[in-house]
Amino acid sequence: MKKAITVGIDIGGTNSVMGAVDRDGNILGENRISTTDYPDIHDYVSALQEAILEMLKKIPEEIELKALGIGAPNGNYYHGTIESPPNLIWEGVTPLCKLMSKYFTEPVVLTNDANAAALGEMIYGGAKQMKNFIIYTLGTGLGSGIVINGEVLYGHTGFAGEIGHTTMVPGGRDCGCGRQGCLETYVSATGIVRTVEELFAKRRVHSPLRDVPSDQLTSKMITEAAQQGDPIALEAFDKTADMLALSIVNSVAFSSPEAIFLFGGLSNAGKYIFEPTEKYVNEKIQSIFKGTVKILPSLIPENNAAILGSSALAWKELEKINADK
Amino acid sequence: MKKAITVGIDIGGTNSVMGAVDRDGNILGENRISTTDYPDIHDYVSALQEAILEMLKKIPEEIELKALGIGAPNGNYYHGTIESPPNLIWEGVTPLCKLMSKYFTEPVVLTNDANAAALGEMIYGGAKQMKNFIIYTLGTGLGSGIVINGEVLYGHTGFAGEIGHTTMVPGGRDCGCGRQGCLETYVSATGIVRTVEELFAKRRVHSPLRDVPSDQLTSKMITEAAQQGDPIALEAFDKTADMLALSIVNSVAFSSPEAIFLFGGLSNAGKYIFEPTEKYVNEKIQSIFKGTVKILPSLIPENNAAILGSSALAWKELEKINADK
Repeated sequence: MKKAITVGIDIGGTNSVMGAVDRDGNILGENRISTTDYPDIHDYVSALQEAILEMLKKIPEEIELKALGIGAPNGNYYHGTIESPPNLIWEGVTPLCKLMSKYFTEPVVLTNDANAAALGEMIYGGAKQMKNFIIYTLGTGLGSGIVINGEVLYGHTGFAGEIGHTTMVPGGRDCGCGRQGCLETYVSATGIVRTVEELFAKRRVHSPLRDVPSDQLTSKMITEAAQQGDPIALEAFDKTADMLALSIVNSVAFSSPEAIFLFGGLSNAGKYIFEPTEKYVNEKIQSIFKGTVKILPSLIPENNAAILGSSALAWKELEKINADK
Repeated sequence: MKKAITVGIDIGGTNSVMGAVDRDGNILGENRISTTDYPDIHDYVSALQEAILEMLKKIPEEIELKALGIGAPNGNYYHGTIESPPNLIWEGVTPLCKLMSKYFTEPVVLTNDANAAALGEMIYGGAKQMKNFIIYTLGTGLGSGIVINGEVLYGHTGFAGEIGHTTMVPGGRDCGCGRQGCLETYVSATGIVRTVEELFAKRRVHSPLRDVPSDQLTSKMITEAAQQGDPIALEAFDKTADMLALSIVNSVAFSSPEAIFLFGGLSNAGKYIFEPTEKYVNEKIQSIFKGTVKILPSLIPENNAAILGSSALAWKELEKINADK
């Protein structure tokens, strides 16, 4: 019997990576192309298709391609489109699924990166048995994927799940979205750097982080400083966790999930982020929800997360198609 | 042919009201009992059952009872229980649906008042064609019912949809829930009174509202003062709308609904609340959601809303049962 696989594709500003993945999350083949090499979307889709076929050919086992899933910034699941993405070269609305279906007869589905991460967690990771959970992806920005009754929440527009752009501090830090005080300006790799900069101004205490030019400060350096007991770094994690906990508590009031998963860069700081976040969640949460929500690290390895997430989207789509039959 | 009806029951701290309602929202009969007269829940359920039968007997048409729906504070849909309600006399967990099923063979379902309001809007009101919307019920507190993919959002615990207890101002106004800065301390009939009190302290301008003892100030007086052009009342509505808009914008980022319905006391202030709320939502909303969400008054008449909402819960349950067949 042929082995059923899906192809997961993650479209980033620089590179597009793809992988052939079985239902257990084993990656049987991988490939990549440069995203920026193809300003014309038709050329891009053609190159993507060639790279997929090349990848599939190299797999020694007999395989059967079942579906393709794509994760892309501003990806709209309902329309199969990428809509005005801030970091991609194609402007306006790109009907990617439609263009892909010229080459593939299998279902092609698309969503944004954070929703793909939620699906990765549900299909291969720590949320296999869960019907209601949220994943916070803590990278340069903060993405979120919300699962309700076993389905990713897309909402009326297809763009639901923008927790990173909920306003936490009216008139607060400038955000890339053009507004102010969004969660991701506080809770993300760049957010914690901004918090350290604030603490430089506020505190008089010595910190090795003060020796680094502001432009070169990274969340990794802050984690390393925290591991050395640096008070500025520790306070920055505490403040980041405080804000993250406030968002988690508000998310729980909204949708009462079973778990919140933390994924990506900042969540790798381990106890420096998890311990204060749990402490503040316990302090802040409404009594009716006390003890009802777990805060967990994602079980999806970060280096494969993009491919696994988008391939999970494809598996999930096949489940839906089968349920409708 | 007998006319199919459901019975809607709303359990309040003082009275329990009930009505027999057809699928179009016509109320064919009504009755009520005192809630406080029955400290023993078994006596209460017995009296409730008698009142229902008495009501049904008086209906001249031939009817067929299909299901019963109950709206109650801290009502848990999953378990059919009322759990530690702050304003009811029964403490702990009351298995109301189970107790009712001793008297009725028809399905008996239960949820909280705001979720019932959402169902009323969906079955009889302005959300008949909508799959994704939120209702804010602006009474003494602020309740919310969230509908996603045509289903009320109950979450993992059954208690999802507590937008009134999202934290808007860390360390802000004391809330009845024991925490601080919850939305309902700003956006509700009591919230706008507190805002007027703040403005008394902040502004020097004359206002007839200053003649009213603080304990006797009501949101109705503030609405009437606004209609007379009173600057304190107008500023209080503006501030209330500003905070409401912030919550709406954050709700849109979370679940991207097609509409937000405003229901109850404060929403009766009409343009004084709707116009500034729309203005602030337009100012604050993330560009990706601009123009995607309508802010609408509930179409359910307030005096019948409790009965209609809980009867709608029963109709919705019948839809689910039929879909599962």
